[in-house]
Amino acid sequence: MNELTIHLEPKSRTPMYEQIYLYIKKEIKEGKLATKSRLPSARSLASYLGVSRTTVDMAYMQLVSEGYIVSEPARGYFVAEISGLYHLDHLPKPAVPSKNKAKEEKPLVDFSPRGVDLRYFPYSTWRKLSKEILNLENGSLFKHGHPQGDSALRGTIASYLFESRGVYCEADQIVLGAGQEYLLLLLSQILNEKNGQAYRRIAMENPTYPQAYRVLRETGMEVAFVPMDARGMQAAELEKQPVNLAYVMPSHQFPTGIIMPISRRMELLAWADQAPERYLIEDDYDSEFRYVGKPIPALQGTGSHDKVIYFGTFSKSIAPAIRMAYMVLPRELLEIYQSKLGFYASTVSGLDQKLVNAFLEGGYYERHLNKMRAVYKAKHETLLNSLREQNLPVQILGERGGLHILLRMKNGMSESEAIACALQKGVRVYPISDYCMENQAVPWESTILLGYAALSETEIRKGVALLAEALK
Amino acid sequence: MNELTIHLEPKSRTPMYEQIYLYIKKEIKEGKLATKSRLPSARSLASYLGVSRTTVDMAYMQLVSEGYIVSEPARGYFVAEISGLYHLDHLPKPAVPSKNKAKEEKPLVDFSPRGVDLRYFPYSTWRKLSKEILNLENGSLFKHGHPQGDSALRGTIASYLFESRGVYCEADQIVLGAGQEYLLLLLSQILNEKNGQAYRRIAMENPTYPQAYRVLRETGMEVAFVPMDARGMQAAELEKQPVNLAYVMPSHQFPTGIIMPISRRMELLAWADQAPERYLIEDDYDSEFRYVGKPIPALQGTGSHDKVIYFGTFSKSIAPAIRMAYMVLPRELLEIYQSKLGFYASTVSGLDQKLVNAFLEGGYYERHLNKMRAVYKAKHETLLNSLREQNLPVQILGERGGLHILLRMKNGMSESEAIACALQKGVRVYPISDYCMENQAVPWESTILLGYAALSETEIRKGVALLAEALK
Repeated sequence: MNELTIHLEPKSRTPMYEQIYLYIKKEIKEGKLATKSRLPSARSLASYLGVSRTTVDMAYMQLVSEGYIVSEPARGYFVAEISGLYHLDHLPKPAVPSKNKAKEEKPLVDFSPRGVDLRYFPYSTWRKLSKEILNLENGSLFKHGHPQGDSALRGTIASYLFESRGVYCEADQIVLGAGQEYLLLLLSQILNEKNGQAYRRIAMENPTYPQAYRVLRETGMEVAFVPMDARGMQAAELEKQPVNLAYVMPSHQFPTGIIMPISRRMELLAWADQAPERYLIEDDYDSEFRYVGKPIPALQGTGSHDKVIYFGTFSKSIAPAIRMAYMVLPRELLEIYQSKLGFYASTVSGLDQKLVNAFLEGGYYERHLNKMRAVYKAKHETLLNSLREQNLPVQILGERGGLHILLRMKNGMSESEAIACALQKGVRVYPISDYCMENQAVPWESTILLGYAALSETEIRKGVALLAEALK
Repeated sequence: MNELTIHLEPKSRTPMYEQIYLYIKKEIKEGKLATKSRLPSARSLASYLGVSRTTVDMAYMQLVSEGYIVSEPARGYFVAEISGLYHLDHLPKPAVPSKNKAKEEKPLVDFSPRGVDLRYFPYSTWRKLSKEILNLENGSLFKHGHPQGDSALRGTIASYLFESRGVYCEADQIVLGAGQEYLLLLLSQILNEKNGQAYRRIAMENPTYPQAYRVLRETGMEVAFVPMDARGMQAAELEKQPVNLAYVMPSHQFPTGIIMPISRRMELLAWADQAPERYLIEDDYDSEFRYVGKPIPALQGTGSHDKVIYFGTFSKSIAPAIRMAYMVLPRELLEIYQSKLGFYASTVSGLDQKLVNAFLEGGYYERHLNKMRAVYKAKHETLLNSLREQNLPVQILGERGGLHILLRMKNGMSESEAIACALQKGVRVYPISDYCMENQAVPWESTILLGYAALSETEIRKGVALLAEALK
């Protein structure tokens, strides 16, 4: 007891029990209270300190639960053996990361292919819907949701996909996820559960969507690149590969912009039909934005829809921060998912799901798409017209839809020269080689990519004028 | 031309160009227009039909883009070769899933360990904050966010973790994800990039959190179960395993409720310090809910914090539908993540991130936690008191914190007998064997789990009374 000369401060904001606890902990850590030495009984310490018995009990319980002391029935409390050091007290407060990082100098016009135009985001609708949803004070909004996502939303998506994309599915085949990358991870596990051996390799286009390529590589899959011609992935070349999976973007290949005609689609579907293990993964990432006529129906609804795994997303068509993509599973894969992988909780925000469902059901999405199609179409025309007016020494490719185009150099400049010259004039354009995986696809050597979705028409005209100077 | 007897309906809601397109598509698909046969020129068809040239052009462009016809320069349009069948037109409209599925009869009282009490969810705060955030009409809200999550939110979480859990980290070490399962998938890829061989096996407690076990198994890891004693995972047993990873829940082991004392924590940290590849994964899933004294600081802040990968979540402390968990990466793993896996876009909703940040920064989270701690503490006491009053033939385990307790049968009943008898009385309790992986951990044979978070105190008392009848 003589060792415990605790100085308590009754007026401190720290509760009495905590002062006792902190003091004893410090003594133990500094070795002043030796291992196995006995502490005063709670009753005697309480009387000595002039505090209630409960106060000392609480301090001792805390010390016991943190392992500093042990209670031996009928014998009392003893200092426990603690090895090593206890760092916490010596730690500095975490530093706030510096906000003054040197920024790269921003170009005047950035033709990034990643952006979307958020100036037309339906903020007031979003506010109205979120208010309505939160006013319902519906406990279900914050509960564990269905692993595949809200069933009302899946029903709405199924109808939308049927009407707008010709996708044939029922709501229970849809799995929502926080982004296409997560869904690809999930799909790779589903396929692995079906037959690990059969899905070690996958065929892809080249150039392709790098995120999908990297995710698939991370899951351990080997990627076989199948050459494309003007109609997309060549079915005859696909036949030569020992694969059971092919990842294609028939509506608007990224980044080439190739739209696969029905004949080639039929060939791919025929390939898939040849063996029970074969599947096509259809990435329909931006089919909403096509400016001439109706979009081509999805591959999934065209052939045997039990051979196509369909992927879509709201990232481009609503906003990137709404982390919501979906995949449509053929029945056989759905059963495997539900029986083996149903334990994965949904990754999609409950509030966002209700918002998107209200947005679709209320007809706002259709209106928003029509508006954005008109906005993007005008920008697309401005870009093409400016390129023609300025008479750039380039061939325009992939200009039939989507939110970017390709320019193939006709002035002898290499891709990197073109990009460097453009940057000197204050214009950022993007190399197609970023999308050519594993250094293949040499024919694309001298081609640059221009996204225009996030730019105004004035910026587009200015950017093209600067680019014309750069490429002279 | 004589084959094309198109009947147009100018008053139809279907645009003229689409009527032409649909008609020709149908003729081709039915074989009435033979492969390679030539179509009338756009000019002559327009004149024949009495429509504008543009209308026919649009129809032809649509047919070309879908691959039904091909354009040969200076020669005209020809029917393309299409193999196989085109299903879309024959498809029924997707069926709406039946809502009349036979439901299991619901028990009177369900002691589910999964629930949380959403009656106290701060709806009005959530409404207020969401209104404020959406009123700012901030374009950044819907843009691509940082792959690791909003940096302001990460800064707030870093401070919170330091103050409340003694976790030592900077904001840039935090990775937000849509649930712990997703983050475990990501972590397994980070570790694989570091050293695939070293992380083929992982040590876990048994019983354990089944979701984590399943996710780790799906990534291809082997799991080595290390026996626990009353102080948690036995370091001496861990030493015997050829592993470099151990997954532990020191604050409140799920489902046993064991709180690991400081001495055992030190032993585990010493194990991790022995080899550069070794890491501890600390799952701190519900440390917010401890009813006696302060929670024990996290393992991460206790020892060498570069050896602990810390996991936390807002699922229990705010709401399950807010899909937001976080992991704190040691610097070495952070660098691997950023250089090799930074391409993964964030999986967390932009709106939810802003909401949670405002909730934490505004001091609402602290108040909410204090309220919920009081609510859950009262329920916890009601449960323990009822069990004592009703004098159930059980031993109570894991009652020092969390949102569930364990009951070990003392009446000779097996686990399944106890559960069946309880269900007959209208009470659902849960078997610990659901959490015992790979049929190990036999000593837990006759133990049931009671979660109480989602029940009212009245329901808890009623449930215990019914359980007492069932176990008699």
